[in-house]
Order: sequence, then structure tokens, then C-alpha cells
Amino acid sequence: NFNAAGGTINRIFAPYCVYKGKAALSLSPVLPTFSKLESGAGLKVDRHGVMMLRFWPAMGERKYDWEKRQLFALSATETGSLISLGSKDSCEFFHDPSMLSSNAGQVRKSLSIKPHADGGGYFISLSVNNNILKTNERFTVPVTAAEFAVMKTACSFALPHIMGWDRYTNNQRHGAEGSPSKVDKQILDLEWDK
Amino acid sequence: NFNAAGGTINRIFAPYCVYKGKAALSLSPVLPTFSKLESGAGLKVDRHGVMMLRFWPAMGERKYDWEKRQLFALSATETGSLISLGSKDSCEFFHDPSMLSSNAGQVRKSLSIKPHADGGGYFISLSVNNNILKTNERFTVPVTAAEFAVMKTACSFALPHIMGWDRYTNNQRHGAEGSPSKVDKQILDLEWDK
Amino acid sequence: NFNAAGGTINRIFAPYCVYKGKAALSLSPVLPTFSKLESGAGLKVDRHGVMMLRFWPAMGERKYDWEKRQLFALSATETGSLISLGSKDSCEFFHDPSMLSSNAGQVRKSLSIKPHADGGGYFISLSVNNNILKTNERFTVPVTAAEFAVMKTACSFALPHIMGWDRYTNNQRHGAEGSPSKVDKQILDLEWDK
Amino acid sequence: NFNAAGGTINRIFAPYCVYKGKAALSLSPVLPTFSKLESGAGLKVDRHGVMMLRFWPAMGERKYDWEKRQLFALSATETGSLISLGSKDSCEFFHDPSMLSSNAGQVRKSLSIKPHADGGGYFISLSVNNNILKTNERFTVPVTAAEFAVMKTACSFALPHIMGWDRYTNNQRHGAEGSPSKVDKQILDLEWDK
Repeated sequence: NFNAAGGTINRIFAPYCVYKGKAALSLSPVLPTFSKLESGAGLKVDRHGVMMLRFWPAMGERKYDWEKRQLFALSATETGSLISLGSKDSCEFFHDPSMLSSNAGQVRKSLSIKPHADGGGYFISLSVNNNILKTNERFTVPVTAAEFAVMKTACSFALPHIMGWDRYTNNQRHGAEGSPSKVDKQILDLEWDK
Repeated sequence: NFNAAGGTINRIFAPYCVYKGKAALSLSPVLPTFSKLESGAGLKVDRHGVMMLRFWPAMGERKYDWEKRQLFALSATETGSLISLGSKDSCEFFHDPSMLSSNAGQVRKSLSIKPHADGGGYFISLSVNNNILKTNERFTVPVTAAEFAVMKTACSFALPHIMGWDRYTNNQRHGAEGSPSKVDKQILDLEWDK
Repeated sequence: NFNAAGGTINRIFAPYCVYKGKAALSLSPVLPTFSKLESGAGLKVDRHGVMMLRFWPAMGERKYDWEKRQLFALSATETGSLISLGSKDSCEFFHDPSMLSSNAGQVRKSLSIKPHADGGGYFISLSVNNNILKTNERFTVPVTAAEFAVMKTACSFALPHIMGWDRYTNNQRHGAEGSPSKVDKQILDLEWDK
Repeated sequence: NFNAAGGTINRIFAPYCVYKGKAALSLSPVLPTFSKLESGAGLKVDRHGVMMLRFWPAMGERKYDWEKRQLFALSATETGSLISLGSKDSCEFFHDPSMLSSNAGQVRKSLSIKPHADGGGYFISLSVNNNILKTNERFTVPVTAAEFAVMKTACSFALPHIMGWDRYTNNQRHGAEGSPSKVDKQILDLEWDK
């Protein structure tokens, strides 16, 4: 685990987990990676961050089989869809994790979020259809309105981080604030400056 | 008080307090604790954080008896319930602080949040039924819509922190940003990487 | 300007300003101050933070008289009232800045926020009635829905800071994360721990 | 690139991009600049931050012409307008980037955000009318409800940063928290202190 500065960083494991009768799900952010511009003048996002959903099945009472987990990585826009979901709305996303390879179309994943009939929560389902392994898996985890509120609040918090926007900050805590600095007072027309 | 790094940390006391005729309540976050993975590759949440509610009774005009305080620790999901509460909704939580011990069932706590009849705030009540001490206490603090808005906003701010998600951040301010770093440009299929 | 650590800190001047025909207003946060507990075990809020509103009158076309400014400091709860204000709601707060002195009652300030008749913004008014100086001033600044949205968003951002809750954070960036640390794994019953 | 402390800072490139049939748009924050007060007692905002929108046209299938990009810089208040936009609301802003120069009136830019007829998203359009170059350009990018939710959430996150309010923080991580510090306990009447 290396960060953009080439140093090791600690991976953090703090997923939000929901355990229900037939399966469990967890949600956690995966941050973007950055690379230095060739000019040396800055850092740009290299691989976008995602909100990672993991599902794994129950294998008995209060026991779950982590080995059988399946993943679904929500992009920033899919995360936007989740956090703007009204209490009667539903949404569905389709992924092909081999999209750009020779296995394109062999594995199909779909994630759906559908409201409970009584409006008090959602069913979150992941289907994984794998033509290579000839498997077809489906996980459904019912989440309460309170659990979905945690997911929404946590995703709203995390969204700017997976976009890399937490890098934009005025908190230059290390700078020696007292050093001399002449800021050009003229109004720069930011809109001219491409 | 030790943090995950083994250093001492300052405890912070900045509760949000509401003083009313018969009782007072305070709200403050308790952060999670982390432990290092045995592999050394990261940190994982050890004990989850909570939003701590404290109630203590009035003992005269504008005097309150802190010695008689009772606590109720809201989990992340219970906090999600609070922050998603509509102006006419109510919720109730039940805790047994001795749940996993031989005293299970001897102490029962319940917290309820119920809207004022006129829709302009809530009654927040804590009942503590202690079969060991043969006591039965009940605190009720009426909170205005403005006070509840502070509680909601503060809980929304604190929720990612009690989940430990503020650890996920791109702000690696200590890294020597200028050191060389080769980031693999190929799109890693995050969904394959369990 | 000293912080809790005894070091000098830079005061920040980044008010949100609204200039209208008869007066201007600005909004900016004032952070709480902290003091060390006598036990040395932590820091507690000493003086609560506020959202400071300043009003000053126009003295000609696009000219304003800063010398005649008047202040109104919104507490956390008053800020909660502002950020939860519906588009047809109004609110009013009364302050006596000499409340605990021999001049109590001599100066009365009231701040009111009232919706425009067409629902597209608010009138924010400050009245200052000073019996000592025999003055009676009133400022009214009409703010658009967009300006009020900035005030709400900025106040929601600032509220945890004026409460001092930004001190509660897991981002111990200075800690030597790699040092050994044994965290007690047993579930501490946080609700027993007063 | 210099920050207020006179040190070099890394520019961050992490725009949120939406690619559609005829054009693409990107959104990213531009932070304010600060200058030191002559008294040395603090920092004040020198040039306000903005949310920068960039538009550039398609030049074939999935190809876009970055050389033909046009910019529109949303102020804090315009950003407030965007984040408070209801699903059936529209808004429009007019800029003259040469406003204070001899070319005033020669270039006119307008940005409009209009809801889709079916309520499920918006059309975001930029018109640039340049009398000097005798050009008239118009870009329209339809954004889905999910994409607009990302823009709103990201703008809500960024707004306090472009206002410079992320500088107001209690997280004085550099202070030697243990050093002696006597905080004056008397209640300072903040409202007297102009």
C-alpha cells in the first residue's frame, strides 16, 4: 500500500455492516489514487475512488460465509443516485467487470435498490451471473430506514473523498504562515484563464 | 487515554447540553478504538463509536444533580434513526447493558423520542429499570425544533467519525509529495479484488 | 490571539457578506475557547463558539459605514433554528448583552428572520435599543433564496466547529501509527462508565 | 503556485466530469487566496474562491475538443443557488468577464440550468457571445438526477472551502497541547467587541 508520495499508508478497515437472515452486506469507501503530472506542477486523479459494497451469504444461525463474498463498486455518479433516492424510488446498476478484456460479457453484475412495500426501508440485491464458472448468485439484504440513513449519510460524507476533493483544502497546517508573501491584488479573471 | 498509536491523547469535553425544568441532557460523540492488524497492513475498528446521551435530574431551580446521571449510547444505526426522524415520527430503542453477562436482563434501558403534539419539537425520555438495585428512573427532556436541529446536524457531522470513516482520507499532509512514485495505470478491476 | 496550547494563532477574516440598498450584513464563525482540565486529562470548552452576524448601514451609493456596525452572536441553538427554517417560517431572537451586569436591561437587541411574501428569500433585521445612549437602530437586509442557502450551508458546516466537535476526530495524523499498542478487546460497557 | 505561506503547493486535478453526446462539462473548486493583514494579526480573503464549470464540445464519437473549452466561474452565492435548486426549478446567471475593463460588454456569458420535462435531471447550458472575435458558442449538457446529486453534494462540501471557512478550525494539530495556558474565564461579551 503506497500513497501518491511513495510512502506506506495504513489501510483502514471500518466497514458499515448490516447482518440479516440470508446475507450480510458491508459498505466502505475506496479512495482514488493520484499520480504526479509530468510537469511536476500538480497531482491528478489516476483511478477514481468508489463506494465498495460487499455481500456474503449466511451459512447458519448468525454465521456468514465470507469466502463467498461478491463485490460491487459504486462510482461517484452511482453513489449520487443512492444518496438522492426518495423513499419510494428504486434504482438499478449493471456492471461488467471484464468489460475491456476478452472476457467481456461473461460476467454480469447487477445491483438493485427497491423500497419496502410499506416505505420503511429498502431491499438491496446483488446478482452475479458468471458464464465462465457457470454460476448465478443472488444476495438480498433488507435494510431498515435507519440503516439506509446511515448509508446515505456515510456516502454523502465519503463522496467528496472518493472524488479526491478532500485534497482541495485551505488547511495548510504545515506552512510557516508567517513567511513573507505578496499576493497579486489585481482581480484575475479566472474565466479567461483556461 | 491512549490512541491506536500508543500515544496519549487529550480527551475532549464539548457536549451539547439542554437544560429543562425537570432534567438536563447532553450529547457527545465517543470515537471508535482501532487495533493494528496482525499482518501489520492496516488498522481495523476494534470497538465501535457511539453518540452518548447523558440525562441527569433537576434538584432545585437551575440546579441539577450530576451524580444521578444515566447514560444511553446510540449506535451508528440508532444515530441514523435519529437523523432521519421526520417532524411527526417517533422512535424507541431498548438496551440491556449487561446483555452478555450473568446479569442479562437485570437492567433495562429504553430511550424514546416522540414529537410534541404541535409538531414543534420532541420529548426525549430515558427509562432505566434496574432489578438489581430495585430502582426505576425516568427522565424526560422536551427539546425544541431548534435544539433538535442542532442534535441532527451534530449527529450527521459526527456519524462518519463514530464509524471511523474520517480515517479514510486523501489528505496525506505528511507525505513528501515530491518523492517519485509510479502508479500502475491499468484499470484495476476493484470488483475482482476481494 | 492565543489558542488552548498557548501558541499564537492567525485570526481568519473570511466573512460571507451581503450588500443591499440600505445596509449590509456579514456572517462568520467565532470558535469556542478551550481550557485544560485541572487533572490534565483533557480539554473542555470554556466559552462557547457563536455565529457572528454584523450589520452596518449604507451611507450613499455602494458605500457603507462600517463604524456604525452592530453585532448579534447566534448561539449553537439559534444557529440550529436558522438552518432548520422552512421557506415560510420566521424566527426571532432577543439578546441583552449586559444581562449579567448592572446595566442589565439597558440594551436590547432583537434579530428577526422573516420570509419574503413571494417565498423567495428572507428579510433579516436587527434592532438595537440602547437606553444608555438613547439610541434606537434598525437594519434590514433582504436576502435572496440563494444567499440564504449559502448561509444555511455555511452554518451547517460551521455548527460542529462552534460547538468544538471538530476536536473529536480519529485523524491522529501526528501519531507514530506504527508503535505497538494493545487495545483491550473486551466489550467495555460504555453505558456503565459514567 | 504559491500559498499564503509562500510555499509551493501542489495543484490538484480532480474534476467531476460528465460526457454527453454534444459536449462535456467538468466541475471543480478553485480555492480563495489569502493575504496577511498589515498588522500581522491575521489572514484575510484576497480573492474569493469559485466553483469552476468548464464546457467543451464533442468532435466525433467519444472524442471531445478540449482546445475549444469555455469557462464559467460560480460565486459562492451562485453555488448556493445551484445547491438549493428544487427538481422543477431553473436558474440563470450572466457574467461579463471584462466587466471592469475597456472591453466591458464585449463578451457575454450566460449559464442556465433547466429541469428536464420529466423531472429527472437538468439541461446545463453555457452561451458565450464574443463581440471581439465575432463568435457565438453554445454548449448544452444534459445531466441526470444522479449526476446532479453528485454536483450538489460536491458543491455543498466545497462551498465552505471556496469561502475560506475551512480555515476556521479548532484542530490546532501543531500546538503542543500540553503547554501552560491561562484562558481568561470571564465571559467576554462578544457582541460588544466590534
